[in-house]
Amino acid sequence: MVASQILSLGDVAREHRRSRPELPAVVDGDVRLSYRELDTRANRVASALRARGVERGSRVVWFGQNSFKLLELIVAASKAGAVVVPLNWREHPASLAGALADADPRMVFWQDEEIGETVGKVRASAAEGATWIQADAAEYDEFVASGTDTDDEEPVRHDEPVLGIYTATKDNGLTAALLSHLGIFVESLAVGRANEISDATVFLNSGPMFHMGTLVSTLATFHHGGTNVFLRRVEPLALCELIEQERCDRAFLTPPTVAAMREIVAERQFDLSSLWPGLEPGQWHSVTPSLNPTTGRSGSYGQSEIAGLGTFAGLGRAPGSPFGRPLPTVQVRILDPEGRECEPGQVGELVFRGPTVTVGFLGRPDLDEKRFRNGWLHSGDLGLREIDGSIRFVAPMGRLIKSASENIHPADVERCLAGHPAVKEVCVIGVPDTHWGQVVKALVVPVDGATPTLEELAGFARERIASFKKPRLLQIVDAIPRGPGGQVDRAAADELGGGGGYPGEHSGSAGHVAVRQ
Amino acid sequence: MVASQILSLGDVAREHRRSRPELPAVVDGDVRLSYRELDTRANRVASALRARGVERGSRVVWFGQNSFKLLELIVAASKAGAVVVPLNWREHPASLAGALADADPRMVFWQDEEIGETVGKVRASAAEGATWIQADAAEYDEFVASGTDTDDEEPVRHDEPVLGIYTATKDNGLTAALLSHLGIFVESLAVGRANEISDATVFLNSGPMFHMGTLVSTLATFHHGGTNVFLRRVEPLALCELIEQERCDRAFLTPPTVAAMREIVAERQFDLSSLWPGLEPGQWHSVTPSLNPTTGRSGSYGQSEIAGLGTFAGLGRAPGSPFGRPLPTVQVRILDPEGRECEPGQVGELVFRGPTVTVGFLGRPDLDEKRFRNGWLHSGDLGLREIDGSIRFVAPMGRLIKSASENIHPADVERCLAGHPAVKEVCVIGVPDTHWGQVVKALVVPVDGATPTLEELAGFARERIASFKKPRLLQIVDAIPRGPGGQVDRAAADELGGGGGYPGEHSGSAGHVAVRQ
Repeated sequence: MVASQILSLGDVAREHRRSRPELPAVVDGDVRLSYRELDTRANRVASALRARGVERGSRVVWFGQNSFKLLELIVAASKAGAVVVPLNWREHPASLAGALADADPRMVFWQDEEIGETVGKVRASAAEGATWIQADAAEYDEFVASGTDTDDEEPVRHDEPVLGIYTATKDNGLTAALLSHLGIFVESLAVGRANEISDATVFLNSGPMFHMGTLVSTLATFHHGGTNVFLRRVEPLALCELIEQERCDRAFLTPPTVAAMREIVAERQFDLSSLWPGLEPGQWHSVTPSLNPTTGRSGSYGQSEIAGLGTFAGLGRAPGSPFGRPLPTVQVRILDPEGRECEPGQVGELVFRGPTVTVGFLGRPDLDEKRFRNGWLHSGDLGLREIDGSIRFVAPMGRLIKSASENIHPADVERCLAGHPAVKEVCVIGVPDTHWGQVVKALVVPVDGATPTLEELAGFARERIASFKKPRLLQIVDAIPRGPGGQVDRAAADELGGGGGYPGEHSGSAGHVAVRQ
Repeated sequence: MVASQILSLGDVAREHRRSRPELPAVVDGDVRLSYRELDTRANRVASALRARGVERGSRVVWFGQNSFKLLELIVAASKAGAVVVPLNWREHPASLAGALADADPRMVFWQDEEIGETVGKVRASAAEGATWIQADAAEYDEFVASGTDTDDEEPVRHDEPVLGIYTATKDNGLTAALLSHLGIFVESLAVGRANEISDATVFLNSGPMFHMGTLVSTLATFHHGGTNVFLRRVEPLALCELIEQERCDRAFLTPPTVAAMREIVAERQFDLSSLWPGLEPGQWHSVTPSLNPTTGRSGSYGQSEIAGLGTFAGLGRAPGSPFGRPLPTVQVRILDPEGRECEPGQVGELVFRGPTVTVGFLGRPDLDEKRFRNGWLHSGDLGLREIDGSIRFVAPMGRLIKSASENIHPADVERCLAGHPAVKEVCVIGVPDTHWGQVVKALVVPVDGATPTLEELAGFARERIASFKKPRLLQIVDAIPRGPGGQVDRAAADELGGGGGYPGEHSGSAGHVAVRQ
């Protein structure tokens, strides 16, 4: 028998160099790279990584915003057998310091522009031993130039990790799921089918690349030989300019961003027909990997632990659930607390098995046992089967607020606000918002005589947790509604404070990765 | 770290049972099975296989024509960890006996109708030890009924074989490539993308299922939850009836079959718009996995040793070569005889690496060393790179005649005819034919005083090799053209006998698996 070989991202780059040498791989500001050039750079980066001690299994952290440099780093790490961990720069420095400790990286690539202050705080508390390279400085170019053009083509194993992606399902701080070479390969094929990606695709990296919501499309576009267009961060005017200029036909755009783009085109004309062919601005809709461009249908469920999409509604026969049926890459079951298969209509935990499922959690081997049982990943999400076998996502097992495309755990915000001297008790809910989907609202019982203001509490939170998690609404209450056992009655709290619109509550919504259409 | 799990065909059936229980899986004469029913039958077959001694790695031979029973057998074998080997019933009994010996099966499922005589001859010379079950008799139903409904869900390894498929590239008799669970999984995803398969697809199994040309679509349709419609063998009238009745939108139809269907509809009306939407009969074209239904473009190269398709031209930017570029599932290189990468335009051997590549040859471990070098499968086919990196298939390294969709090695026919008492020397060429693509022609130098006729030689061949290989044209010549070293000069032989139209000679042609458009 002959050993089975998979295609790593490094192998894909090698094949593109042979088969698509002059096709456009990357557009990022003034930088335009063909697939030949991208592979050449990746070879140099791989060699430069090795020269700085990066070995098979070493972690390499990307602490920056969107850039083609993250893609070339991922390809290079694949060639070197290393694991790239992109940090969510919007998190609080204290959380990021914990994440960095879990990653225990050999190298950190960091960005000064806009996030230099955050980086500085994290670096100050980081362990010694990692080499830090500034990605938006000449230092990075020197780093790349220091590498050689040789490609040793050392094969990787299918189950070795290549990416560590921070997930929504938290457990004492930020948790990154390790995704394998095989998992990324298979996910790229699945997203390629769902989203009809080919070497003619031009994908606009218009969501944060530390989320699989954008990164699955980046990698699927790369895998199929299409063009990745990068923008450092979401800027509606720049998005309009790039879509017009590069004729982008795929993107990651949430409803608030689309709304902002509509306002821009009301003032100045842009040809965005490559993205929304035949549609007037009033008909523009959000764009995610869950949208099939031919049928125009969307709807999906996913999470980073399964490398992106788990179910999909955009192809074939219309399923009973707007979340669709499992992709051909994954097995899904719905289990009751005793681990028995639920009947159709019965809510249980969604569990997954298949090649896209995480091979473990970064620096958290304790979670392997907690999240896996009998080889099935337990998602921490509730769902049910419709009669036709399609799957409906119901809610996270722990309640989650979704504001724009960010997942916010109420407990996270509550723990923070409880530390404010004027707060006696606090309960955090999500309130429906036409612009953001939901916004964070704090129900607060003040300590006797205190009168905390929204401004005070928001400022207090911003200093301790990610800014996007700070409360935007405050309601002073006499008591937090509690059940007979003393536990917070979240339904009653929602009723008291006008909460609602949680992920899974509305029929057309999607899961963790995709956004509401 | 957690063990990486793949999806076997058995896992796909399990998932369909949960997620698509009532969707139609199979139509075969009066038999209609939902995915729930197909999985139930597969469980019974798996259990019945085990009860008859089939273990992990055991071979199970299918010696019959097209049937849903072959699909359920493959799914069941996947669950049991066994390998299904479908024999080409059109081959000569002597070759089939050799193939059966290589397979060394634990069980053989055979068909009496039409091929009972061939089966009888093969069985007469087969080794003891295998259990033979007649597939088109009550014996098969009893076999299925003897199994239990339990599904032990024992996971398979990604690199274990599940199929043994006889290939065009021969080496002393029939040779079967072993295809792994991972290979079939990945190929189904690739064909699903190329051919835009979903759970709404209705595939007509209208080519022989022992060839990957049809079987890749059978399995991709199954994998994506679509409907497989079976017909025992190619019958143009029955094809028209089935397409109309079941609204088939995918099929495997060669140009001669399409021509025959055109003649049928000239006499009697059929609605075949599901397969050829908006086209008049005069515009109907052949249908294979290399046709993308949206772009209408086709062209591909493949072989059974890579589980089907290797290159594809139907999607994205138009490539320079009509064979297209590698699928996202495979790496391709073109090597000179010293193993160095060829320059664009330079002809060399096509070599492959990736998850769809065979994990070995059935009963022929000696070929592993011969066909693999440095981890790359050597295809035995010549090709070149266009300037744009796309790949042109040039010709088999050993010359091949392609008549209808069958591959015929001239050496095979020559060896046979050389044994005829009236033949002194013989050279076999392919002559272009509008109906069959090519037909077999023998150039014969008779022994002194003999006057062999076409009828005699064809009859002689039919008794010894597959009937489709017999010569259909004969030319008596004074001498076979030879080069300075005494070797046959095939180009001069073609000139002498009107040979031409070999696979790879015409720009729009495809490789071993797909047929000429």
